[in-house]
Amino acid sequence: METLKLRKICIDTYRENVAYLHRDCPVYRSEGFQALNKIEIHKADDGAPVIAVLNAVDDENILAPDELGLSEQAFEQLDLPDGTGVRVEHARPPSSLKAVHRKIAGERLTLEEYQGITLDIKGNRYSKIEMAAFLVSCAETGMERDEVLYLTRAMVETGKRLDWSEPLVVDKHCIGGIPGNRTSMLVVPIVAAHGMLIPKTSSRAITSPAGTADTMAVLANVELSPDQLHKIVRRERACLAWGGKAQLAPVDDILISVERPLSLDSPGQMVASILSKKIAAGSTHLLIDIPVGPTAKIRSRSAALQLRKLFEYTGDHMGLQLEVIITDGRQPVGRGIGPVLEARDVMQILNNHPDAPADLREKALQLAGRILEFDPDVRGGQGYVIARDILDSGRALAKMEAIIREQGVNPEAPVPGKLQQPVLASASGTITAIDNLQMARIARLAGAPMDPGAGVDLHRKLGEEVKQGEPLYTIHAEFAADFHFACEATVEESGYRIGAAGPTRE
Amino acid sequence: METLKLRKICIDTYRENVAYLHRDCPVYRSEGFQALNKIEIHKADDGAPVIAVLNAVDDENILAPDELGLSEQAFEQLDLPDGTGVRVEHARPPSSLKAVHRKIAGERLTLEEYQGITLDIKGNRYSKIEMAAFLVSCAETGMERDEVLYLTRAMVETGKRLDWSEPLVVDKHCIGGIPGNRTSMLVVPIVAAHGMLIPKTSSRAITSPAGTADTMAVLANVELSPDQLHKIVRRERACLAWGGKAQLAPVDDILISVERPLSLDSPGQMVASILSKKIAAGSTHLLIDIPVGPTAKIRSRSAALQLRKLFEYTGDHMGLQLEVIITDGRQPVGRGIGPVLEARDVMQILNNHPDAPADLREKALQLAGRILEFDPDVRGGQGYVIARDILDSGRALAKMEAIIREQGVNPEAPVPGKLQQPVLASASGTITAIDNLQMARIARLAGAPMDPGAGVDLHRKLGEEVKQGEPLYTIHAEFAADFHFACEATVEESGYRIGAAGPTRE
Repeated sequence: METLKLRKICIDTYRENVAYLHRDCPVYRSEGFQALNKIEIHKADDGAPVIAVLNAVDDENILAPDELGLSEQAFEQLDLPDGTGVRVEHARPPSSLKAVHRKIAGERLTLEEYQGITLDIKGNRYSKIEMAAFLVSCAETGMERDEVLYLTRAMVETGKRLDWSEPLVVDKHCIGGIPGNRTSMLVVPIVAAHGMLIPKTSSRAITSPAGTADTMAVLANVELSPDQLHKIVRRERACLAWGGKAQLAPVDDILISVERPLSLDSPGQMVASILSKKIAAGSTHLLIDIPVGPTAKIRSRSAALQLRKLFEYTGDHMGLQLEVIITDGRQPVGRGIGPVLEARDVMQILNNHPDAPADLREKALQLAGRILEFDPDVRGGQGYVIARDILDSGRALAKMEAIIREQGVNPEAPVPGKLQQPVLASASGTITAIDNLQMARIARLAGAPMDPGAGVDLHRKLGEEVKQGEPLYTIHAEFAADFHFACEATVEESGYRIGAAGPTRE
Repeated sequence: METLKLRKICIDTYRENVAYLHRDCPVYRSEGFQALNKIEIHKADDGAPVIAVLNAVDDENILAPDELGLSEQAFEQLDLPDGTGVRVEHARPPSSLKAVHRKIAGERLTLEEYQGITLDIKGNRYSKIEMAAFLVSCAETGMERDEVLYLTRAMVETGKRLDWSEPLVVDKHCIGGIPGNRTSMLVVPIVAAHGMLIPKTSSRAITSPAGTADTMAVLANVELSPDQLHKIVRRERACLAWGGKAQLAPVDDILISVERPLSLDSPGQMVASILSKKIAAGSTHLLIDIPVGPTAKIRSRSAALQLRKLFEYTGDHMGLQLEVIITDGRQPVGRGIGPVLEARDVMQILNNHPDAPADLREKALQLAGRILEFDPDVRGGQGYVIARDILDSGRALAKMEAIIREQGVNPEAPVPGKLQQPVLASASGTITAIDNLQMARIARLAGAPMDPGAGVDLHRKLGEEVKQGEPLYTIHAEFAADFHFACEATVEESGYRIGAAGPTRE
């Protein structure tokens, strides 16, 4: 078979590997390639191939007929210098696709089949549409609980697994969907100040206006090498880092890149995704937060209970000590929505500032209290009081400052977006509803999380009184276009409902 | 909003529109774009936008920061000269995705919802993964028969529809899966010689070793403009053309580009796909051929009957006169597999050549007979005899020659591939099974349909005797690499089963 000269094509195709061949390339012709075929790229010395989708190039300025171009991600994966001789051939369809077809037909898959699927996904053998087919066939009630367990186990097995060599490694996770709600940045310093090991890695926001990693990045460097991360955790018992490059349950990351654009959020996938990541990160004890409310991900208490049982079943069988807490998800938690505004809330609470948002503080103390009770030396029911004491005494603040210092203070210290617009109450009365989805949307339109100072600052929460013309919240933005879009969106739908004045009735 | 200069990027991304923005492009930054986002490209004068997936470029030799690059297909769709000022923005998620999520949740969709989905797909608003999600949620028993009807109707409505202004416009269609089986090229001249209108448009092979369009292309030009096609049909009552550019049920073409790589072939999608194309092509009377056999698409008589009823139900409600014939799909039909070899079979039959494959002739006569009986003047049961008379008398050949002449004789007249290798019987006995899938695979490995002379020529069929060392079939190829792959594949699995000598038992 003929050899082609490798060439990096500086195009970012995100999570999709793309290979480029000139249409006049002899290999293109003789192999019967067609654009959007998948091909395997082999090193001359027969390492594991890189799989990529093929695009045909008709311009020699981009690529010569004797070259093989790879998009940035694919080039990085192949990890060979420009000009290296490589062979290409048709990618064999992944053998686990048979199992996906059985799943589409409504059948139940075995552990071995889930292992086959995750191995092929990890090996980049699945195209986006094949992953979509797998995810949709598993969506809704497509997976029985044993299958959720199999998928979790298979996802853990296909990645690295951290071992902290301690009997108690704690973590917390919220299933998401509530703007603000930056509890991790409070729970971690409180729990670590108590001496528990809590090596917290978080994601950046994908569909939300801020993730914990985005918000922590306002204060400190969050992109830590595995070595740095270990050093910091050993010294401070904690970190607040971005988990992006850790290769923990990498299949989960790949699947998420298809789930998110499809807005698929089935219970089975959610449980497998969360638990595989935590187990791979070395957690032994985990607290799961399920917010319930009309605009939360989970909208009824019965759905929350069902999800809780699925978490418990899977966690128990994976040897994880798992607690689930069902919380109030009727509105955003805290005042700020967007990295800078959320970081401000967190630091106000750690500083015991009189303006600190009480709801975020209260929720963080509850979560921290539950985690502290994982400690065998803490008496049942005493966790909350210990957490409050750690926070009130300033020990949580000191721990947070130590973590920030160790990770590296952000020298830029971004501030709230300078373009500001208050959104006013159209009538006097009591706030009867705040729409989580609309508030998140407005904050994203304003530029969050890419512009850390952009977002929404809430001045009124559920049950509070407001007079007509008083501000409900303020929009912050950095760029005029974003600012304009966000303000426009509030005209159509402010996200707030105002009812008759007087105390809220439930 | 800022304007970018349009630039054609000579990359063939097949059916996926791709837009390229330089990472330093001010719009990329301010709009918060990310690779694999979908964007809308607007003309300055506000026409319908073109939707494309975004790739970020890090090389000014490919694209400057003030330019918007479009892949070949997207550039063609936008239909503006290089350098035109265009605006880009985030593509709004298609509103019909809500219906897809309802379908994933197992709900039944309305006609209006299917119309919304097809309109959005036609408008290029669906990404590949969104289409995959839709198709998988409809797969297997995902659609009730009313939904199949709705989807068929919606697909017809979203494209052009031909009107031949005659009460009887006939067509035939085989659901596929049987190598060889080139009945259309016999049925069309027979039926047209009788005077019936049969404007046949066919697809090129996608997963098979030859489509009717590939095989007819061996003999004649098949890429006809709508004007040419109409002129030829008016004159000869028939054509045998490629249907690719007709914009008939275009949503079907788009969905197929996702179905095929997923090997999805659910009954509902199949019926909607076939019937929408035929209705859009102006057919009033249609014969459907469902081959049944252990390696055919449909493997049992009961599955064939179920599929027949779905065809009938949908056809009846769409006002189509539809007949279904269930045929023997236990082995390839005819001798040749691959464009040139299949064209040879067809011409031998039309010429009443003594070596002509009897099974292909017989099947074509049966199909043509059934179609002739759509003619109110043909007495029930007389179709077959009329068809045979037309064939035996040379009138079918004369009609075929006229069609070839009108469409334009192929001056190259390709011949069977010069690299040849017989595959020999490993034992003496009776041929008890021929695997359709394996024979198709070997022919494709040999280079069919891209190399028209490549393929497989069968020397033995089911029930025939063979002595050890006698050839079962011959592989033909043009290129050494293909030839090698095809020959290698037969070593593993010849595709033939040879049983004890003696008459075949069923």
